Amino acid sequence: MSVSGRIEKALEAAFTRVGTSDSPPRLAAGMRHAVFPGGARIRPRLTLAVAAACGEDEPALVDFAGAAIELMHCASLVHDDLPCFDDADLRRGRPSVHKCFDERTAVLAGDALIVLAFQILALGSTQPQRLGALVTILARAVGGPAGIVAGQAWECEDAPDVGLYHRQKTGALFAGASMIGAAACGAQHDAWRQLGETLGEAYQAADDIGDAESSVEALGKPVGRDLAFGRPSIVAQFGLAGALQRFDRLVEEAIASIPSCPGVNDLQTLIITESRRLLPKQHWQRAA
Amino acid sequence: MSVSGRIEKALEAAFTRVGTSDSPPRLAAGMRHAVFPGGARIRPRLTLAVAAACGEDEPALVDFAGAAIELMHCASLVHDDLPCFDDADLRRGRPSVHKCFDERTAVLAGDALIVLAFQILALGSTQPQRLGALVTILARAVGGPAGIVAGQAWECEDAPDVGLYHRQKTGALFAGASMIGAAACGAQHDAWRQLGETLGEAYQAADDIGDAESSVEALGKPVGRDLAFGRPSIVAQFGLAGALQRFDRLVEEAIASIPSCPGVNDLQTLIITESRRLLPKQHWQRAA
Repeated sequence: MSVSGRIEKALEAAFTRVGTSDSPPRLAAGMRHAVFPGGARIRPRLTLAVAAACGEDEPALVDFAGAAIELMHCASLVHDDLPCFDDADLRRGRPSVHKCFDERTAVLAGDALIVLAFQILALGSTQPQRLGALVTILARAVGGPAGIVAGQAWECEDAPDVGLYHRQKTGALFAGASMIGAAACGAQHDAWRQLGETLGEAYQAADDIGDAESSVEALGKPVGRDLAFGRPSIVAQFGLAGALQRFDRLVEEAIASIPSCPGVNDLQTLIITESRRLLPKQHWQRAA
Repeated sequence: MSVSGRIEKALEAAFTRVGTSDSPPRLAAGMRHAVFPGGARIRPRLTLAVAAACGEDEPALVDFAGAAIELMHCASLVHDDLPCFDDADLRRGRPSVHKCFDERTAVLAGDALIVLAFQILALGSTQPQRLGALVTILARAVGGPAGIVAGQAWECEDAPDVGLYHRQKTGALFAGASMIGAAACGAQHDAWRQLGETLGEAYQAADDIGDAESSVEALGKPVGRDLAFGRPSIVAQFGLAGALQRFDRLVEEAIASIPSCPGVNDLQTLIITESRRLLPKQHWQRAA
């Protein structure tokens, strides 16, 4: 099965195996709306790529680990889009959850997706001795001290720490996606943090570039919002050319950081190919 | 150490062991505001009572399991108090999190508390083979299909299922509190569901009675809100006398449901004593 196929199947299985028979219908629909159809699924793709490089022995567990990361990403989008944050009407070219349903359903759907992410780690755990690492990695990637929730919370501070803001808002879940791929294989996972963090920075750079120059139609979400909200952006900091240079350097650093593993060559190739697709189309030629 | 002491210590340890050094200050403060000082801590008290009855062999794990249940309860209060739900200015006699900080911090503090609850299960897990059950019980008690998030979400439906609303909004976390106490001891946990669910119903009955007749000063939160919001309430359904009768019957049922265990007698006595304290003071004599 293709990587995309594995990820979609695991996300579907998360819903069907946990069940929805007693669920309030709006909540169940709001949760699915947040997850399907998805975006590029770039974080779980990283999880599966790292697991493949580590020589995965439990593909079902890897798939649920990737799905858990994606569910957390979807939950964060639902809450980030709320009226009290971005007040975004559009997400992935469709109405955001609070626009399609209501604000209360959006708050609860986000909550329930966070819970579901942890639940499927336990559900997929054919290797009980790996579960502790999986839960810990996921929690650190998302939680209050230094995960994506903390990253978003810097937007509530009068004097945000810009470095921590970027590392936490984007880097933390990429680091988690990378590390959980190794942990799902029983491999030492700390060595994989750097790859995820660096790819997270590259992704953020690409996102800032996209936000600064793309159109609503191409992104499927409102653009120019970083500048409108006075958020730290590397385009504002270094200009467009500087941001593109920085993106290239980060991809090189990511590749150099890959720990010794059976599938190192394939993973290097994959990162080059996939990173190119992060940029707006007009820059693909240059990145190639 | 007293039961209260164990619970407060475990909740403190949840924050200190996970760490807050890189956390945005408002988020960290908002999370602590939601948890300290606490209310009656009735759910973790149930967890510790069940564990004691099962003959606990890993008290530290039991304490973290109880703390995880309480963190989920606190998270649910923060989100239930939001302007889009109860719009409650007061909680436990103090400003609610969104009043004391802001709405965005309240959304994120709730999210981060949910994550922290799962994180400390892994942190406290000296018995890796028990972690899967702990995570699963906690997720079911809280999640979208039938946990407290689902219970709250019935308030978004035009035609709520009143039975499911009560079982999920209150009963689910009490069931989880009871079952996780057994699971933290490695005991069979399904047999403990009935006790938690029935105590949850009794608690809900007591809460409805309190909501109908208490004062703001005694409750530390706005009163009369169930009726104002048209929420299902057993006082509205059966009248005050009927609600009190129902409360007594539920406590009897709870006691009768206790599975065979080393500490059954002590647990029976404890439930009689504690259940009395759920009612407004003017009813204590009658319940005695």
